[in-house]
Amino acid sequence: MDKASEIEKSTSVSRRDFFKKTASVSAVAATGILAPSALLAKDDENIMHHPKWGTTLGEECNYMPYGMPSKYEHNIVRRTSALMSSAGDMHAAISMTPLHALSGIIVPNGLHFTRTHNGVAHVDPNKYRLMIHGLVEKPIVLTLEQLKRYPSESRIHFMECPSNSAAEWKGPQFGTLQFVKGMMSCSEWTGVRLKTILDELGLKPTAKWMLAEGSDGSEMSRTVPIEKVLDDAMIVWGQNGEALREEQGYPVRLMLPGWEANLCVKWLKRLEFGDKPWYAKEETSKYTALTASGKAIQHFYTLETNSIITSPCPEVPWTDLEKGDLVEIQGLAWSGYGTIKGVDISFDGGKNWVPANLKGLVLPKAWTRFSYMYKYEGKPLLLQSRSYDDSGDIQPTVNQEKAVVGVEGVYHRNAICTWAVSDMGEVTNVQVRS
Amino acid sequence: MDKASEIEKSTSVSRRDFFKKTASVSAVAATGILAPSALLAKDDENIMHHPKWGTTLGEECNYMPYGMPSKYEHNIVRRTSALMSSAGDMHAAISMTPLHALSGIIVPNGLHFTRTHNGVAHVDPNKYRLMIHGLVEKPIVLTLEQLKRYPSESRIHFMECPSNSAAEWKGPQFGTLQFVKGMMSCSEWTGVRLKTILDELGLKPTAKWMLAEGSDGSEMSRTVPIEKVLDDAMIVWGQNGEALREEQGYPVRLMLPGWEANLCVKWLKRLEFGDKPWYAKEETSKYTALTASGKAIQHFYTLETNSIITSPCPEVPWTDLEKGDLVEIQGLAWSGYGTIKGVDISFDGGKNWVPANLKGLVLPKAWTRFSYMYKYEGKPLLLQSRSYDDSGDIQPTVNQEKAVVGVEGVYHRNAICTWAVSDMGEVTNVQVRS
Repeated sequence: MDKASEIEKSTSVSRRDFFKKTASVSAVAATGILAPSALLAKDDENIMHHPKWGTTLGEECNYMPYGMPSKYEHNIVRRTSALMSSAGDMHAAISMTPLHALSGIIVPNGLHFTRTHNGVAHVDPNKYRLMIHGLVEKPIVLTLEQLKRYPSESRIHFMECPSNSAAEWKGPQFGTLQFVKGMMSCSEWTGVRLKTILDELGLKPTAKWMLAEGSDGSEMSRTVPIEKVLDDAMIVWGQNGEALREEQGYPVRLMLPGWEANLCVKWLKRLEFGDKPWYAKEETSKYTALTASGKAIQHFYTLETNSIITSPCPEVPWTDLEKGDLVEIQGLAWSGYGTIKGVDISFDGGKNWVPANLKGLVLPKAWTRFSYMYKYEGKPLLLQSRSYDDSGDIQPTVNQEKAVVGVEGVYHRNAICTWAVSDMGEVTNVQVRS
Repeated sequence: MDKASEIEKSTSVSRRDFFKKTASVSAVAATGILAPSALLAKDDENIMHHPKWGTTLGEECNYMPYGMPSKYEHNIVRRTSALMSSAGDMHAAISMTPLHALSGIIVPNGLHFTRTHNGVAHVDPNKYRLMIHGLVEKPIVLTLEQLKRYPSESRIHFMECPSNSAAEWKGPQFGTLQFVKGMMSCSEWTGVRLKTILDELGLKPTAKWMLAEGSDGSEMSRTVPIEKVLDDAMIVWGQNGEALREEQGYPVRLMLPGWEANLCVKWLKRLEFGDKPWYAKEETSKYTALTASGKAIQHFYTLETNSIITSPCPEVPWTDLEKGDLVEIQGLAWSGYGTIKGVDISFDGGKNWVPANLKGLVLPKAWTRFSYMYKYEGKPLLLQSRSYDDSGDIQPTVNQEKAVVGVEGVYHRNAICTWAVSDMGEVTNVQVRS
């Protein structure tokens, strides 16, 4: 069952209720960010004298050696659904990131989406070993301490499960942004480039493929072509400044920027180099693209350009807006092929488009925020975003995607999403195929 | 008392102990990252068959809706010291970031340093109000919801207490990097530029100063010149993707990039615009520069260029290195004036310098990582780093700093730090003044 219904109703006092007190203030701003009712009357200066503010002693500065969010943020958590598990078994399941509540491009580690194939492994870092062998001149077993001695790099990259939005092309499957697109996150990753290690170990010329094997219950195994290994592949131990979280493969995972998260093997224990692909379980029965003909396409790895509007969305509706209010439409765009070049926004389900602004850091293979200032009119809308990147890749419509990917596969579905905004400002997940 | 002694000894097996097993392997790499003993013998392929790896079911994917670090990371926490409090009262005290254990330039929110003047306040976001008044055309009281409706920006900036390393110029005061320099962090902050709000409210031409007031037990109040307010000052509610933590001013704080963290008033409740400074308690008795003459200098805000070597450091010694090993010297540099242009490293206490490499993102008013690959020789060293920025500011020696700042003040002391590395690789905090 979809657990989205568990999300509690906000307990916040309605803005309108609150401002009844100040409703007598004469209106000044006709159109702007602020409703005229927000302006301050002379009598209202007393409002700041909240009885408890500034009069009580707070917590000691060291009350939490490792801090946690405010209790008021208790609804901002990862959520899962039986639909996102193997027959309800939460060991092989997915827990989704609350995209609607995020700002910027960094996802706090506590909210990074989690996908496991046989549970979250607990690996003792003191017993951790990484074996690198096969077609290398000097096979090796590294401790964590030795691995960390290599010169490190830190880069901000998104991480996305290739089955994000898997079945949405059939029509709306979930009612919230968190469930529609939450199988992704973005972090600053720290580790060593595989090329740096291989330069020292000596890769044999016959080495064309790398097997990466995890130490979790599923012994997740995937094969990576050598070109990617020598380009920007990393072995990472750091995430947003600290050690990887256990759900993300503590102490070490593979990181293939812009490629399927499933390839970024967690709890990494072994890298073997060979002259042909391994065709491991998770790259034959799964993580292939099943086409209409019944044949499966293998060896596709890069996540196509994609985008989603995060405000408004089902969890962040416009029910509190009044006609004439200016409001910021915001969203996220990303591409495994490179850097986002632009995002367009449509208000009528894709008939007409206007360019949005990219804001903040615009980095390759990373989330990029986009923004559009909109004057709310209280009319029904079919809101869409469409991204394109510096490789020329552009986000397709549902029908365009179907023509390429077919109707059987659940991976690499990056079709344009549509939010229907009602005349009351409610937002629902709908589908526009063309 | 210095709590650094509480840091537990690592329980990790020594690299040398472990590799006794493989010591018979013939040496290959003469000089490199890896000790020859790390190479793999044929028999050692069995090493990967750790009895428990890959054979046990892990935790369910949703076992932590909001995740926490691995239990093996329990020593990586904020730490405090009675020396960093007001007569031992932890309501007016500081809890320090474990810089030695961090990677990249993002500090996870759970480890951001905490400074409180009368405890960590708990503010109900539903009751939160921000008053903006004084010399503005349209004074206003905003709810949190209204504030967040403004177009937002996200930027990565460091945050540092101006008393970081306060008394180190007198000679070593603390034995660990965490206590020497841990009164700083770096995050992606999200909020609205004050200029955006003031463009709508209408700032009167007579407004030259802004008072920012917090709602904590100390009602922290500071005055900010209007030039900074209209430049890059922000009101922020987001930190590394999620809501501010309570220790950082939840739900809203002021953010003045590159300026003293104390000015970035937490639990912000009021902004007043006026034609002269307020001379509040915390900018008269404190946060002024007391000079040798007994006079205090006011209105200095910008944190000067600064740097510190984070590896090696007292918590990350070189005791496990062997002569000939290549090792990465790493550190952090930052400047409130702008962007780091370079960092030099000295091995002999400042007599000779070599340039380090800047790595990763190099952003204005943000932490910047520097790196230098060093061939370990087992000789005693006096390790130093010296940063300079694009404004021309260069980090001074202790004596140069003293000539400018005097000997009374505890703020804005950015003199070069020195780690003594013994012939055994132990690292201690020492002082070189010249």
